[in-house]
Amino acid sequence: MKANTPFQEEAINAIRFLAADAVQKAGSGHAGQPMGAAAIAYTLFTKHLKFNPANPKWVDRDRFILSAGHGSMLLYSLFYLTGYEEMTLDQLKEFRRPNSLTPGHPEYGHTAGVETTTGPLGQGLAVAVGMAIAEAHLAAVYNTEDNKIVNHYTYVIAGDGDLMEGVASEASSLAGHLALSKLICFYDDNRVTIDGATDITFTEDRAKRYEAYGWQVLRVEDGNNVDEIDQAILKAKADPRPSMIICRTVLGYGYPTWSGLSIAHSGIPSDEELAGAKKALGYPTEPKFYVSDEVLAHYRHALESGKDAECEWQACFEAYSAEKPELARQFKRIMEGEFPKDWRAALPKFEPSTKGMATRTASHKIINSLAGVFPELVGGSADLSGSNSTTIENTQVFQKDSYQGRNIAYGVREHAMGAINNGLNQHGGLIAFAATFLVFSDYLRPAIRLSALSDTGSIWIFSHDSFCLGQDGPTHQPIEHLSSFRAMPNLVTLRPADANETAIAWKIAIERRHAPTLIALTRQSVPIFDRKKFASADATEKGAYVMADLGPGPVRLVLMATGSEVELIVRAAEILAIEGFGVRVISMPSWELFEAQPETYQNEVMMPEIKARLAVEAATSLGWHKWVGSGGKMITIDRFGASAPNDFLFKEFGFNVENILQKCHELLTE
Amino acid sequence: MKANTPFQEEAINAIRFLAADAVQKAGSGHAGQPMGAAAIAYTLFTKHLKFNPANPKWVDRDRFILSAGHGSMLLYSLFYLTGYEEMTLDQLKEFRRPNSLTPGHPEYGHTAGVETTTGPLGQGLAVAVGMAIAEAHLAAVYNTEDNKIVNHYTYVIAGDGDLMEGVASEASSLAGHLALSKLICFYDDNRVTIDGATDITFTEDRAKRYEAYGWQVLRVEDGNNVDEIDQAILKAKADPRPSMIICRTVLGYGYPTWSGLSIAHSGIPSDEELAGAKKALGYPTEPKFYVSDEVLAHYRHALESGKDAECEWQACFEAYSAEKPELARQFKRIMEGEFPKDWRAALPKFEPSTKGMATRTASHKIINSLAGVFPELVGGSADLSGSNSTTIENTQVFQKDSYQGRNIAYGVREHAMGAINNGLNQHGGLIAFAATFLVFSDYLRPAIRLSALSDTGSIWIFSHDSFCLGQDGPTHQPIEHLSSFRAMPNLVTLRPADANETAIAWKIAIERRHAPTLIALTRQSVPIFDRKKFASADATEKGAYVMADLGPGPVRLVLMATGSEVELIVRAAEILAIEGFGVRVISMPSWELFEAQPETYQNEVMMPEIKARLAVEAATSLGWHKWVGSGGKMITIDRFGASAPNDFLFKEFGFNVENILQKCHELLTE
Repeated sequence: MKANTPFQEEAINAIRFLAADAVQKAGSGHAGQPMGAAAIAYTLFTKHLKFNPANPKWVDRDRFILSAGHGSMLLYSLFYLTGYEEMTLDQLKEFRRPNSLTPGHPEYGHTAGVETTTGPLGQGLAVAVGMAIAEAHLAAVYNTEDNKIVNHYTYVIAGDGDLMEGVASEASSLAGHLALSKLICFYDDNRVTIDGATDITFTEDRAKRYEAYGWQVLRVEDGNNVDEIDQAILKAKADPRPSMIICRTVLGYGYPTWSGLSIAHSGIPSDEELAGAKKALGYPTEPKFYVSDEVLAHYRHALESGKDAECEWQACFEAYSAEKPELARQFKRIMEGEFPKDWRAALPKFEPSTKGMATRTASHKIINSLAGVFPELVGGSADLSGSNSTTIENTQVFQKDSYQGRNIAYGVREHAMGAINNGLNQHGGLIAFAATFLVFSDYLRPAIRLSALSDTGSIWIFSHDSFCLGQDGPTHQPIEHLSSFRAMPNLVTLRPADANETAIAWKIAIERRHAPTLIALTRQSVPIFDRKKFASADATEKGAYVMADLGPGPVRLVLMATGSEVELIVRAAEILAIEGFGVRVISMPSWELFEAQPETYQNEVMMPEIKARLAVEAATSLGWHKWVGSGGKMITIDRFGASAPNDFLFKEFGFNVENILQKCHELLTE
Repeated sequence: MKANTPFQEEAINAIRFLAADAVQKAGSGHAGQPMGAAAIAYTLFTKHLKFNPANPKWVDRDRFILSAGHGSMLLYSLFYLTGYEEMTLDQLKEFRRPNSLTPGHPEYGHTAGVETTTGPLGQGLAVAVGMAIAEAHLAAVYNTEDNKIVNHYTYVIAGDGDLMEGVASEASSLAGHLALSKLICFYDDNRVTIDGATDITFTEDRAKRYEAYGWQVLRVEDGNNVDEIDQAILKAKADPRPSMIICRTVLGYGYPTWSGLSIAHSGIPSDEELAGAKKALGYPTEPKFYVSDEVLAHYRHALESGKDAECEWQACFEAYSAEKPELARQFKRIMEGEFPKDWRAALPKFEPSTKGMATRTASHKIINSLAGVFPELVGGSADLSGSNSTTIENTQVFQKDSYQGRNIAYGVREHAMGAINNGLNQHGGLIAFAATFLVFSDYLRPAIRLSALSDTGSIWIFSHDSFCLGQDGPTHQPIEHLSSFRAMPNLVTLRPADANETAIAWKIAIERRHAPTLIALTRQSVPIFDRKKFASADATEKGAYVMADLGPGPVRLVLMATGSEVELIVRAAEILAIEGFGVRVISMPSWELFEAQPETYQNEVMMPEIKARLAVEAATSLGWHKWVGSGGKMITIDRFGASAPNDFLFKEFGFNVENILQKCHELLTE
């Protein structure tokens, strides 16, 4: 291996000390990772990464994900050095300050060039698997022999923490299975975590584990050696498997007393420690944030090479447009996130039926109807595609010999599914959903949170949405999940009452390309309401709506419910109407959408002046006081479920018309 | 290898067909797993497992965990066959019926012999790691050269689903690191999951992966061969590593047309399919639930051998009691879950201080004080022991050469930590806590749910409990987490306001040995209230209490808050008092504990007749309407946080005295 040239050393040190200076100035942050992994990033960004700093959204750029997101200054330094317009030196100086482009951890949508939000460990590597799946799928669908308009790599830098996390293990196993050859991960093997050396907890043979997953495993003995890193990347690119490049690095490389120790992770260097590091590596100690003109010019060459690369791709795309005009238009449309014209016509309308159908079954019909007009709609389930009713018919499963397939078989890997689903949606060009039972949403909750936090249009389809799944028992019966998602900012949770509300729920999910949507679906059949008798399901978009005012005279009682319980309040209201009471029936598929309506609409629907109010939902009571007020009642469930047939559980837990009527009579006589 | 004898075959078939008959009768359930793994269970239960059906709680029994919990009929059949008193044949016939001892998935605390609740995949294997840690630790602390009073194995049957789950990967990596030699896992390698053959998603080299973790990997080519299984168990017991025995099995073994196919997983066999299976394996087709007297007697031998084994242990324990009388008494105490006398005296009392301390720091002092009187208190953090302030001083880290250590270093493996913590608490003899940042509680949420569902006294310590952690930004700032845990049945969530509330929170957590407790702690300092001026922190046990009524005249305004925001309402109330208003200040560390109080107490504290009410909590608003009513206001945060210094965030998000005063004045003039 060639030794680094002095100029290379200086260029690498520029990354190190921009990071360390910024951390020192901010008084918090993580300089150890950038200082240790600077040479990896340098080699990647100057010799391999296909990107155009002038157009961070160029569709065929290589994706780079810093899974060890605490090392955010590594990214920000590179963005500044390579010439991302908005990433000025002043922004680096504003690291971790209010409203800067340089927050503590990289935030997708906030800073140009950040491909996904990282910080919670393991997520970035799993998201990268999603991006590599997206690339492989789009390449299979669109590329021709002559014109490969989709042809990019996904690179990751991951640390010890990432490799310890289960989500990364799950995703890596799937990546190996799928032979995602264009996924290249650098393992920043610095042998230190916050609590100390990795020999405290992490002594497994990582190389062997990744070989077991079906990855090519490469070793870079000196993680500061550009030539060695470069050779490894070349080997990684040439292999038909995903590649894990294990780079032996030193946390806080350069620090005179902290180097290689836990304190280098997030310690704020004293002037002495920092100057000592600069001296040790032959870098000017002053001024802070120093980069020589030569080094800056060297990095800024990326603007030129990036422009050339994008021009080359443009030429390729023009040739492709001549070869495949229809597909070229479609590709342009999906990459720009535009919808096909008249796509809403594909939303099925379901005929009224008292027998009805499960909303998961309705969802299946809707998915397949939408899949016909949206070639970009892909999705899958964590080994429950039948139960979740999520299979897209007339297409294959996405496998290494069928990358054109639109059904993704995740295996029993819910958490990786969540992160991969985010990667699919963040890559561009796809609308992706992921599915499991609502109760197992807990397994992927960290990924759902990241979709919400990063304004990503991930669609979450969770069937078996209440204890009404019956005999599988409390381990499989969600109770607290609806509430726990309603508490999550930026996520819209929908629990449709029938097939037609389900269609609108899907419409909402498709349209929300910059925020996630969760749809909770029944296992059991529910009636399809006659919309001549009841208000149109279109009002699902408003979150809550008056299905009907029944009975004579003014409304004396307000009943509200979501999902499968809407049937129960409708049946109760019909009886109350016969008894002579004016009753309002409200279907409330989404609290969040309703809360976003003007207050006048909310009051029109809710009639807060009526004190006799009852909410019915087969879930926890938490939050319902907002809607029933202090005079109201609830039929909810604040205990875990039980393993028994549905009939028994409905009765046991009070979800039946008799109990509703009793509560209503109590309210009417209070 | 010897072939099975016809009698062995009959005995194994008894398990298979008890399971299949029960599933058929219930009309739901999973017979495929028991039919495939019956020979493994037979060999284990008749040749190796140390247990006494007459005393399922015998402390030195081997633990057996069916991680593939859907195969619950395997367990129930064995409990019946080996003579667990309550598990009658009638109970098997009541499989999945209301109030039976045979629910769909095994429930800890509900059915004697079930060591942990399983069903959500991956959890059982990770819990088993916790049990093996518990065994190793107790053995290291108590055993002497002559008298090994703690000396048992932990066995697991895990399926493909378990091995795909990240939680199992994390736990297995840690088990290898810790060289838990008495952990023996059978991998029921039937190559089928719900969505089809494992070659759809799961083609990694599992053996190699487990070797990479540092496990001994053994293979049983014929998972129906008793001798081969027996030999593998002998090898597993002899090795200093944990062992993974990969058993090639056939899902639904015996089914004439379903055998080896996905449908065997949870298909309900027709009479033809079931009779066909019995015929194929030479078992009487009628009556259902048939077990010959000879086979039953053979299994029931466990009652005799179990009694002998327990007697032998009793003799050992008596010898031990003579050798180490003090430790013997202590061992008896901890295994019976009794507390040391006067342990409450160990709860620190903190002097008032305006400078104060972070509640995580208070927690650290409390942990160490309690650790002095509770030798059974153990715990750890997912690589954040310093930040979470959870290190027990004067003891080591639990490592393979220091099993007596009480600090468990989990590495960056939150989910495994959660399941292992449940295993530690379910094993008996330990009170265990687990810690990370509150925001990362999402990673272990499935395990927290299982602690709640299974009445397990796991203690969850989550520091950095609001956006007030500052510059790490929104990926690290919890918003929805308090609400999402308040929604979870049976879990008590505590957010103490100062050091003295923290001490009571720990008291509550220690005492809740049959239900989990979560304590959310601040990163930043909060004052220690002068309890001469304010009500005693002892009232923390009631969930909410009046800290003080300030100002002249009757109460006109009710202020309530939790945790770090109590300081803010106190300061605001002091100003309002000077302004001449009567103000009530309520500290509300736990909604759940408050909701468990008599209504009279709740009304006394809350004064619901006062309409001017304000709640302040640095978390989502969801649920607060219950306490502020329709006339009240809230200062909460329904968006994600931001990366900036605390001072900025307090102002930006309205968590400051000025904003509280403004809201109060609005309320007072409405």
